[in-house]
Amino acid sequence: MPASPEPQKTIALVVRHNTAGIEETVAGIVGFLQGAGYRVVFEAETAAHVQMPGVAAMSAPEIGKHASYAVVVGGDGTMLGIARQLAKYNVPLIGINQGRLGFITDIPIDRMLPALGEILEGSATTEQRTLLEGRVMRGGEMIFCGVAVNDVVVARGTGAGMAELRVTVDGQFMYNQRSDGLIITTPTGSTAYALSAGGPLLHPSVRGFALVPIAPHALSNRPIVVPDSSEIVVTIVNGRDISVNFDMQTFASLQHGDEIVLSRSPHMITFLHPQGWSYYGTLREKLHWNEYPSSDGKLS
Amino acid sequence: MPASPEPQKTIALVVRHNTAGIEETVAGIVGFLQGAGYRVVFEAETAAHVQMPGVAAMSAPEIGKHASYAVVVGGDGTMLGIARQLAKYNVPLIGINQGRLGFITDIPIDRMLPALGEILEGSATTEQRTLLEGRVMRGGEMIFCGVAVNDVVVARGTGAGMAELRVTVDGQFMYNQRSDGLIITTPTGSTAYALSAGGPLLHPSVRGFALVPIAPHALSNRPIVVPDSSEIVVTIVNGRDISVNFDMQTFASLQHGDEIVLSRSPHMITFLHPQGWSYYGTLREKLHWNEYPSSDGKLS
Amino acid sequence: MPASPEPQKTIALVVRHNTAGIEETVAGIVGFLQGAGYRVVFEAETAAHVQMPGVAAMSAPEIGKHASYAVVVGGDGTMLGIARQLAKYNVPLIGINQGRLGFITDIPIDRMLPALGEILEGSATTEQRTLLEGRVMRGGEMIFCGVAVNDVVVARGTGAGMAELRVTVDGQFMYNQRSDGLIITTPTGSTAYALSAGGPLLHPSVRGFALVPIAPHALSNRPIVVPDSSEIVVTIVNGRDISVNFDMQTFASLQHGDEIVLSRSPHMITFLHPQGWSYYGTLREKLHWNEYPSSDGKLS
Amino acid sequence: MPASPEPQKTIALVVRHNTAGIEETVAGIVGFLQGAGYRVVFEAETAAHVQMPGVAAMSAPEIGKHASYAVVVGGDGTMLGIARQLAKYNVPLIGINQGRLGFITDIPIDRMLPALGEILEGSATTEQRTLLEGRVMRGGEMIFCGVAVNDVVVARGTGAGMAELRVTVDGQFMYNQRSDGLIITTPTGSTAYALSAGGPLLHPSVRGFALVPIAPHALSNRPIVVPDSSEIVVTIVNGRDISVNFDMQTFASLQHGDEIVLSRSPHMITFLHPQGWSYYGTLREKLHWNEYPSSDGKLS
Repeated sequence: MPASPEPQKTIALVVRHNTAGIEETVAGIVGFLQGAGYRVVFEAETAAHVQMPGVAAMSAPEIGKHASYAVVVGGDGTMLGIARQLAKYNVPLIGINQGRLGFITDIPIDRMLPALGEILEGSATTEQRTLLEGRVMRGGEMIFCGVAVNDVVVARGTGAGMAELRVTVDGQFMYNQRSDGLIITTPTGSTAYALSAGGPLLHPSVRGFALVPIAPHALSNRPIVVPDSSEIVVTIVNGRDISVNFDMQTFASLQHGDEIVLSRSPHMITFLHPQGWSYYGTLREKLHWNEYPSSDGKLS
Repeated sequence: MPASPEPQKTIALVVRHNTAGIEETVAGIVGFLQGAGYRVVFEAETAAHVQMPGVAAMSAPEIGKHASYAVVVGGDGTMLGIARQLAKYNVPLIGINQGRLGFITDIPIDRMLPALGEILEGSATTEQRTLLEGRVMRGGEMIFCGVAVNDVVVARGTGAGMAELRVTVDGQFMYNQRSDGLIITTPTGSTAYALSAGGPLLHPSVRGFALVPIAPHALSNRPIVVPDSSEIVVTIVNGRDISVNFDMQTFASLQHGDEIVLSRSPHMITFLHPQGWSYYGTLREKLHWNEYPSSDGKLS
Repeated sequence: MPASPEPQKTIALVVRHNTAGIEETVAGIVGFLQGAGYRVVFEAETAAHVQMPGVAAMSAPEIGKHASYAVVVGGDGTMLGIARQLAKYNVPLIGINQGRLGFITDIPIDRMLPALGEILEGSATTEQRTLLEGRVMRGGEMIFCGVAVNDVVVARGTGAGMAELRVTVDGQFMYNQRSDGLIITTPTGSTAYALSAGGPLLHPSVRGFALVPIAPHALSNRPIVVPDSSEIVVTIVNGRDISVNFDMQTFASLQHGDEIVLSRSPHMITFLHPQGWSYYGTLREKLHWNEYPSSDGKLS
Repeated sequence: MPASPEPQKTIALVVRHNTAGIEETVAGIVGFLQGAGYRVVFEAETAAHVQMPGVAAMSAPEIGKHASYAVVVGGDGTMLGIARQLAKYNVPLIGINQGRLGFITDIPIDRMLPALGEILEGSATTEQRTLLEGRVMRGGEMIFCGVAVNDVVVARGTGAGMAELRVTVDGQFMYNQRSDGLIITTPTGSTAYALSAGGPLLHPSVRGFALVPIAPHALSNRPIVVPDSSEIVVTIVNGRDISVNFDMQTFASLQHGDEIVLSRSPHMITFLHPQGWSYYGTLREKLHWNEYPSSDGKLS
């Protein structure tokens, strides 16, 4: 009696919108994966703009329940969007980048099929990333909640004078900060907006969040890294048109006294990288660490 | 035959609104100046909230034409407001600060009468400050113009992704900058917002403007000081909800292709300080340069 | 038959040298501790400059074996010195600061006796700090080793052009960095030299080390935080007169090709603080986070 | 009767030492200039390592008296060296760079002959640069003096604790600064060491010097730009092994109380650039202002 066949594994494909000439790339991936015996589905939004015979559409929750992997074709932004939605299902993510490599979509398109092959055969480098989750509290009630792979940003409105924010960590008062705003970033987000604002890089396995002020009024204010087990509460003390955003998803109408309560999400994101992938290699390439301003040192 | 009497000189008083207990201070100044033979007038907005017998109201242009001095009681914000209006009339300004000393309102209230006496008797330290003036051009037409004592800020809207700004100086391309925005600051403004964003201090007699990016995407971007004879043109290349403000006076509806053309104003502001005043002393006091984070050096 | 008496506990006293008028303070502490039933000893170097009847001298290793606590009177430098020596014995440390409070010697002299009382009665806030340990390898042989509570600094000699340092973390190449030097700091050291060089603050319970470049040539170089489980290897690639120091203890004669191998020490330091102690409170006070450059915001 | 012939103009050639394969480049330049009717001489140090028939050697002072131009082949370091020596003779300098372009040696080797031709025919862009000159005073006597095209650096010795420096500008006290050192930079030097230490860029025609602290202890310390008419005095207050260098030429044995007195040199350096040269273009290229860390903005 023959052994019952192993059930077919499902791989979801998520593709960036409005990307010229992406169909050919997608067709190549679909053919490769189907040829390797996988069932391929398109994430629902992808399916709205890319159709292919024999490839069904699936919502993010369905992908979460049924897919063994999600392959993202696009940039880091596309990856962040689906990563937030799939976080609670723990579907491993593989990132293919069409243009210049991203920090987290790290497979170049001209190596995508061999890289996918290696990863699916089990030789991947697995990496886990933390997320921030938070809620906005007003008068004891939650009026907004969100999840961020990169960062949560509390910022004043344009042309609105400084924001004054009161920050406590695990119930201890940290500071009253006057600034354009405050970025609370995961290690993943430490290469994004927080870096532009002067924050440190955090290796993905550092268990911490960085609080990075934007144009702080007190010149001695500095970025600070706190353990990711911390509960961070940001209270709106003063300022106009203050908003909070979670990975750029904005809640705009904050009032004085509103509290933004942040902590680590119980979920983690799993990224799969090809063998030989190096976080530091990505930093060197993306941040141009090998390029020096002058050919002969300090000019003298 | 007696010599014809010297005509009475006029001094205008500008007072910050909504400042508890300011009447007594103002009465003291009015009495002192009238006693010294001056005619005292209130600037029109001041007159709307402070009345005093025998003290008439005058608009800023009238002050410009008739007053020998303007005395400002309040903070640096009050001073900036009237300085912009009086710049073209070259009325010397004297600043009295109620609370903590300002960068430019440098006479403490408990020394105000002797300091005023010394200054009016001619022993003042005179200091000139440059201004920025600018216009917003769209399709060859000017749609906004402004003057700034501190700075001109071009900035993206909240939650709006980065702005991309193209900057030329005297017709030469400087850079395409992606950032939260760009501050163009006078020496006076170099202690204000630009300093929070990481800009250098410029001594008031340095003939330059600093261009200070806010959270620039390119990590090698740095503040740059250009001669104040430069014409600086900032073109809106990309981004949403981009606005420009001149000393916080905002023009909000910038479109792609709009050009902000900036240059030094032909007018200068004259500040009078008591003898012994020191710009560096103000910096030390305001920036806490004498206070060290640790009592014993580097901890080790 | 009476119960055998509880054996007397020993407390070691470590006092900063050359501190005017410290005898009276020390006598007060000795009297208080003896009165509370403790045996008090002086650390050997302390005993060389402070004598008191009935107080014996003990070397650091003896203190390590016999003392239940060490009380340090002085500044953070004094504390660091003894902390390094006692780390392997895990003797809890209590810091009393004569002058301005330190980051880690946090009990003011005018509260020292009640604070000591509370701590010894068991109401202390206990805090653990990591240490860095390292060795210098040349041709496969160890030629120097050291331990640091604060930081390890690899730096070029004065007037010697830039150093070029190659850094790997857990065997992965991070960068070749040209700079004045590189600081590898613990959370404890993140408030010391690394902070002056632009590094982030690390809360003591963040399990990471920060690598902070000093005047890096590549403008995109940024401080990076790595997990404290990392093995960090710094290789001297180029430069003259390069030295390494562990908490300012210097090994000066580094050669090209020398490797500095750094990792977390297996030992931890235990600090005891009075109840109500707050790390963030110390930061606020030491870094002047409540003092703003201007009384009225952005000047405008 | 024929007009007396115009006397032959002299051009001096300065070539970087120890540069593989430079002879061919030099021969090409010599042939081109002689063909254009110029007398070519080698600067004395150059003549010690490059010989060519019919090309005499000349000391820097002789070049200063006799040469119409000096052509420098090498990097910015070579240019700085000869510029300092020729400053008082006002010989215009032309820079050819063998490797990557420098900030001031801006003609690429593969365009050198047409560029030289254009410049010598009078179509050059002329640019003037200021220099710093200074002297070290001890007990009223000058014990050292120097000139700097880039910068003057006062710095502590390695492993020596912080330096404490007292700075006055035009007799006014600026600050007592504790740090690793202080850089006083010209606009030319603002792209060199000062930039690594966090200083601003100064356009060459800004009439100012920047004071840039190295790892300052006071976190509110910031770079400051003062007019180049200022007399800057740096007094050694505290610290060990403090040295001062002028463009890396070091005077090492400073003592407490020594004063370094700095001001603008009466001489200027003249650089000749090919038409179309742009200072901002050089910045963009050297500082990688067109290269962004991420392909898709802020990752989200």
